[in-house]
Amino acid sequence: MDLATLLGLIGALSAIGSSILLGGNAGAFVNLPSIVIVLGGTVAVTLMRFPLSHMLGAFGIALKAFVHKAERPSELVEQSMNLANIARKEGVLGLEEVEIDNAFLRRGIQFVVDGQDPELVERMLSKEIDLTIERNDEGIGIFRAIADAAPAMGMIGTLIGLVQMMSNMSDPKAIGPAMAVALLTTLYGAVLANAVALPIAEKLSHRNTEEKNNRSMILESIRAIQEGMNPRVMEELLKTYVFEKGRERTENKDEAA
Amino acid sequence: MDLATLLGLIGALSAIGSSILLGGNAGAFVNLPSIVIVLGGTVAVTLMRFPLSHMLGAFGIALKAFVHKAERPSELVEQSMNLANIARKEGVLGLEEVEIDNAFLRRGIQFVVDGQDPELVERMLSKEIDLTIERNDEGIGIFRAIADAAPAMGMIGTLIGLVQMMSNMSDPKAIGPAMAVALLTTLYGAVLANAVALPIAEKLSHRNTEEKNNRSMILESIRAIQEGMNPRVMEELLKTYVFEKGRERTENKDEAA
Amino acid sequence: MDLATLLGLIGALSAIGSSILLGGNAGAFVNLPSIVIVLGGTVAVTLMRFPLSHMLGAFGIALKAFVHKAERPSELVEQSMNLANIARKEGVLGLEEVEIDNAFLRRGIQFVVDGQDPELVERMLSKEIDLTIERNDEGIGIFRAIADAAPAMGMIGTLIGLVQMMSNMSDPKAIGPAMAVALLTTLYGAVLANAVALPIAEKLSHRNTEEKNNRSMILESIRAIQEGMNPRVMEELLKTYVFEKGRERTENKDEAA
Amino acid sequence: MDLATLLGLIGALSAIGSSILLGGNAGAFVNLPSIVIVLGGTVAVTLMRFPLSHMLGAFGIALKAFVHKAERPSELVEQSMNLANIARKEGVLGLEEVEIDNAFLRRGIQFVVDGQDPELVERMLSKEIDLTIERNDEGIGIFRAIADAAPAMGMIGTLIGLVQMMSNMSDPKAIGPAMAVALLTTLYGAVLANAVALPIAEKLSHRNTEEKNNRSMILESIRAIQEGMNPRVMEELLKTYVFEKGRERTENKDEAA
Amino acid sequence: MDLATLLGLIGALSAIGSSILLGGNAGAFVNLPSIVIVLGGTVAVTLMRFPLSHMLGAFGIALKAFVHKAERPSELVEQSMNLANIARKEGVLGLEEVEIDNAFLRRGIQFVVDGQDPELVERMLSKEIDLTIERNDEGIGIFRAIADAAPAMGMIGTLIGLVQMMSNMSDPKAIGPAMAVALLTTLYGAVLANAVALPIAEKLSHRNTEEKNNRSMILESIRAIQEGMNPRVMEELLKTYVFEKGRERTENKDEAA
Repeated sequence: MDLATLLGLIGALSAIGSSILLGGNAGAFVNLPSIVIVLGGTVAVTLMRFPLSHMLGAFGIALKAFVHKAERPSELVEQSMNLANIARKEGVLGLEEVEIDNAFLRRGIQFVVDGQDPELVERMLSKEIDLTIERNDEGIGIFRAIADAAPAMGMIGTLIGLVQMMSNMSDPKAIGPAMAVALLTTLYGAVLANAVALPIAEKLSHRNTEEKNNRSMILESIRAIQEGMNPRVMEELLKTYVFEKGRERTENKDEAA
Repeated sequence: MDLATLLGLIGALSAIGSSILLGGNAGAFVNLPSIVIVLGGTVAVTLMRFPLSHMLGAFGIALKAFVHKAERPSELVEQSMNLANIARKEGVLGLEEVEIDNAFLRRGIQFVVDGQDPELVERMLSKEIDLTIERNDEGIGIFRAIADAAPAMGMIGTLIGLVQMMSNMSDPKAIGPAMAVALLTTLYGAVLANAVALPIAEKLSHRNTEEKNNRSMILESIRAIQEGMNPRVMEELLKTYVFEKGRERTENKDEAA
Repeated sequence: MDLATLLGLIGALSAIGSSILLGGNAGAFVNLPSIVIVLGGTVAVTLMRFPLSHMLGAFGIALKAFVHKAERPSELVEQSMNLANIARKEGVLGLEEVEIDNAFLRRGIQFVVDGQDPELVERMLSKEIDLTIERNDEGIGIFRAIADAAPAMGMIGTLIGLVQMMSNMSDPKAIGPAMAVALLTTLYGAVLANAVALPIAEKLSHRNTEEKNNRSMILESIRAIQEGMNPRVMEELLKTYVFEKGRERTENKDEAA
Repeated sequence: MDLATLLGLIGALSAIGSSILLGGNAGAFVNLPSIVIVLGGTVAVTLMRFPLSHMLGAFGIALKAFVHKAERPSELVEQSMNLANIARKEGVLGLEEVEIDNAFLRRGIQFVVDGQDPELVERMLSKEIDLTIERNDEGIGIFRAIADAAPAMGMIGTLIGLVQMMSNMSDPKAIGPAMAVALLTTLYGAVLANAVALPIAEKLSHRNTEEKNNRSMILESIRAIQEGMNPRVMEELLKTYVFEKGRERTENKDEAA
Repeated sequence: MDLATLLGLIGALSAIGSSILLGGNAGAFVNLPSIVIVLGGTVAVTLMRFPLSHMLGAFGIALKAFVHKAERPSELVEQSMNLANIARKEGVLGLEEVEIDNAFLRRGIQFVVDGQDPELVERMLSKEIDLTIERNDEGIGIFRAIADAAPAMGMIGTLIGLVQMMSNMSDPKAIGPAMAVALLTTLYGAVLANAVALPIAEKLSHRNTEEKNNRSMILESIRAIQEGMNPRVMEELLKTYVFEKGRERTENKDEAA
């Protein structure tokens, strides 16, 4: 669980909600046609931008912003060192029996066991990292598209409301409430973009960078195992990828081991 | 057919249209001079930006956003593996007889059959990928230019309307309707940009990325065939380009074969 | 002649002009002090940004957007193939007599005739391409600077007008016309930027990309002639640079030859 | 201490504060619900964007903008030259005893003492530089996110205030004060973004560039020590990294030495 | 002297000033608290962004936009050719006596005289070019920061003025003048950013590119002298860096020589 996303979402909506409730007259903030044009229009415009299959996957991707699964670099270092030690003692074929959770590490180790050419292994794994990051970026792009489209649809809704109001201003008393309704779509668009879509896109982008760094480290490990690099040197190399606080902890474990 | 583009366009225009109709007085939203300045001005400004020949091709390019033709990576992998197997059994000359739909793959295989130097083949095909992507980007640029120009022309129209209204405010009752008309161009510009031109540009850009990845994979296949790479290794390499869901399906087929 | 630029400019100004004329009272749109602050201010601010010599060349550069001179890639391919055939039959010294229109191709062929080191030739010509593109980009930058400065000066003019109007509101009837005048500078700035400067910058940028591609192809030809590459292979290589419609035509010519 | 940050912050808040106090009626600028929506909303939205652990470290990172610790390049050059001289006289093992403050330099020297492969040392240290810069950028990103979110929350607050005011305009006298309150959130958001978050992000980004340059210089020193480069040449090389004013001073010291 | 900067600044301020004077009532445009918040706030916020030492150097940097010192590429070519001829006739040691104005060229020639390794010389000079450009960019960054901060402080000032005005609207006659004052800060911010800071930043950025190209050419000369390149070839190479008009003149001089 990535509590920060959930807490942040609840916090943002509470701040906005309490501000509405404190002013009394909360009913003035709910208007069905305004919801239709902002939500419906945003979904429709985003649908135009992406293939249908991507849109259907969007909820699943959004969930990833709330449920965190990225492995800790320090654990991956430990696991890689285990594999390196096994490869050193039993030869690379000894790696065949080991159960590996991380799919990317598993695929790489399989190449090592199969005795693939090191250069080719590196090319395949690098390419896979690039393409995975690119695919994730596309998923993230859906939320950036929503964050783009929502304020635009909000503005369109407000313009429609203003034109309606102004082309018929016989009753001066109706101007205020009509303008309030016209502004609602801008408000909806701003909330949808800034308090929902954009932060989710940013969180996912953050996760993507983490995954990229983890995979780069795994690629480094696989290269090291294939070269039969000295374990102490390899550990030194992998620790580069671990943030300093975590690094010290790993060091302590090493000493304990 | 890429239904998402069509459904999205219909959805966006419906959301906007229903919002107008619900307010009654839909006639207030149609104003010929406003249409002339936004549509005419946008087309004219876009014409200035691009060579005439590109503008004439714009409708054809826009159609590509609605009609999807990109081949599935998994099918291209299959086809490439077939070619590799033929080359392995009958030599590269055996490839001469094979019918190949994909023009880029066909061109590459022709080079292989002609016995061109591998390095030169790679250079030519890489260059062709780069230039094709660049040309497609230019086509996409027309829709980005429309999305830029439409709101600008909308703002110009609104400013003209406001100046006209303000320089002659003898009748206070006429102010409202005059302002409504002035706002119409901004509304038209916002709809044209955000609900039509921008999403089409984004969809086309998406297709362009897909095509680039497909062509990179084809280039990889041709290199592998020319090197006489082991088919299992080549398949492993090509599968990197296939999205995971599709990859599993390809694997099942492999097992069935 | 690049008619698209001229037609587009006329079209954009007509759309704006007709919108003004239809509203009657066209005189309200002409205000000398407003013209001074927007035009004068924009020129002055652009002058600050660029060296004087660049500014003086700006009109010449703008003309390039209206008068098109870029050679067609297919003609350059043909010319390069001729040169390659001469070099093949008579040796590179045979190239000395040939008249070459394109200055960049002429310079490159001169290097070949002089027997310069191929690596050095490539370095010099690549560097020249980079620096030419950079210089053109600076010229284009003037129009982007105008497109930046004009709306800013327009806004400054409007703010001045509003302050003048508001600091002296004794006559309510004068407010409307005063505000109309204040808005004029914003209108002028928007028209100058969006209907003149920005499209010219974009068209020039387009031409620059064309020239870069042409020169890259010429560089490729010169390299091929110097290497004594097989003409069929060289043609295959150069055709990569020709857009597909043009490519087919070139092929037909080849067959006819 | 980086006094500029503190002085600047005090100066900016004084300028804003005095402007408020001069207008009298400073109480009109304090409104609790407005503070809740801007501050609370901004924190919540930023929390959504980043992992919780990053947010907790944000205050520590902000402090770095006020308290300056980057070592001066000229001192690092001096220290590196000392190490090079020791290595020259006593061999690299003589470096083991030297106390080194800079953690990155210490780590690199340790590699040299351990007799690691130079290419590997370079790869590890380069990677560490890249990852450190990337991590710092993430920390800076929190302040950029605040600078993004604050004006957005300010606008949302103002829209809520305007809708409340307009949907209930029975008392014309209340309109002014209600609008004043509605504008407060936009004011808070603009101050938080432009006078606090953005300048802190920029200062930190500045420090990050300094650190990157320092570390690049250290990497260059370690490479030179490992290669056993001539000290005069090495000094010449390192001085490239020192800004000219500082460079002259170093030169004087050299002459004095 | 770079007259364009001075003429442009005078022109821009005249256009703005005359627009103010023509409207009469110029006194309405001077308001001390407004000047304090925009000027003071902008300086303070910029101070936060940069180290104190950079701020103190800002005036010196700004002067560079008015006083032009960049050497003409054609003169540098001539000087480099002289040095090459001396090196050819008297050996590189003959260069020791030559007086060289350009500090970068002098440093490079010193390396040649000292018999440094060519690869190292290239690395040092390239690094120096990169770091000099980076430092200049930082100096330019101060003016970009001012251009960012000034409109923001202007908006903050206007918001403060609007809140003050609206929270106390007892006297309808005071509304106009109060709003005029409120708008002044936005006007000041727009003028400071668009007519002063941004054009200076752009001019400096222009100079920086010129210096980078000059230094790249000097690096090329030094490499050529060290390699003992044929003078005619070297001249051909260096002329690539000279803009075409200047190039012809250099050629004439060559012929005259």
